[in-house]
Amino acid sequence: MLGRLNHVAIAVPDLARGTEVYRSMLGATVSAPQAEPAHGVTVVFVELPNTKIELLEPLGENSPIRAFLEKNPAGGIHHVCYEVADILAARDHLKAEGARVLGDGTPKIGAHGKPVLFLHPKDFCGTLVELEQA
Amino acid sequence: MLGRLNHVAIAVPDLARGTEVYRSMLGATVSAPQAEPAHGVTVVFVELPNTKIELLEPLGENSPIRAFLEKNPAGGIHHVCYEVADILAARDHLKAEGARVLGDGTPKIGAHGKPVLFLHPKDFCGTLVELEQA
Repeated sequence: MLGRLNHVAIAVPDLARGTEVYRSMLGATVSAPQAEPAHGVTVVFVELPNTKIELLEPLGENSPIRAFLEKNPAGGIHHVCYEVADILAARDHLKAEGARVLGDGTPKIGAHGKPVLFLHPKDFCGTLVELEQA
Repeated sequence: MLGRLNHVAIAVPDLARGTEVYRSMLGATVSAPQAEPAHGVTVVFVELPNTKIELLEPLGENSPIRAFLEKNPAGGIHHVCYEVADILAARDHLKAEGARVLGDGTPKIGAHGKPVLFLHPKDFCGTLVELEQA
């Protein structure tokens, strides 16, 4: 079922600083910031040869990463995103296995324009997992 | 400078349970557990098409992930590992940029038999970063 690691998302308090860390210190190819108001974040994409890192800064009062940054003021890894071929089949399999899918289980359209679901960290080794239909 | 994402390391309190989550729930290809006494962990490798996830369980009293699991009893993402072509050049560049390299800055031989260094989370968006010479 599990496909590629689509991305690792790192929440940062200061996107300009995060960009500098990845561009100047680590020497990676880093995109311009992209506001995603529907998802409450501004994103910078760090392109690696085999996957990408997404640096996320809160955007708006209801940003889903605001509480995380209050607990982790220096930033931190917020979630990992795995690709699946069929997100509804993945959801049904996970629910049958007893895992908790966040929300009402209906995939939403994610920041890449594809259906996504989030899985409960308590059921996945303490890790917030996003599934994205590839 | 930054090459492939070599792995994402997830610390888990119970490797058998973590293996079941990735094998049965998520349907991934998962290795047998491998004890790494020199590194204080037992590791299971989750093979994805483009990278791998390493599930780490503490091994021995001085395991470097024991304190992390005390703070995060359900487990959590412990570090990310990026490949670099020349670890000494990477270290010298990072130190010149003002970043903190953990330990005395001398690469150690990591669990894959290659030279590795760890970088201070405070200087890298709150994320513990391992560099491995590819």
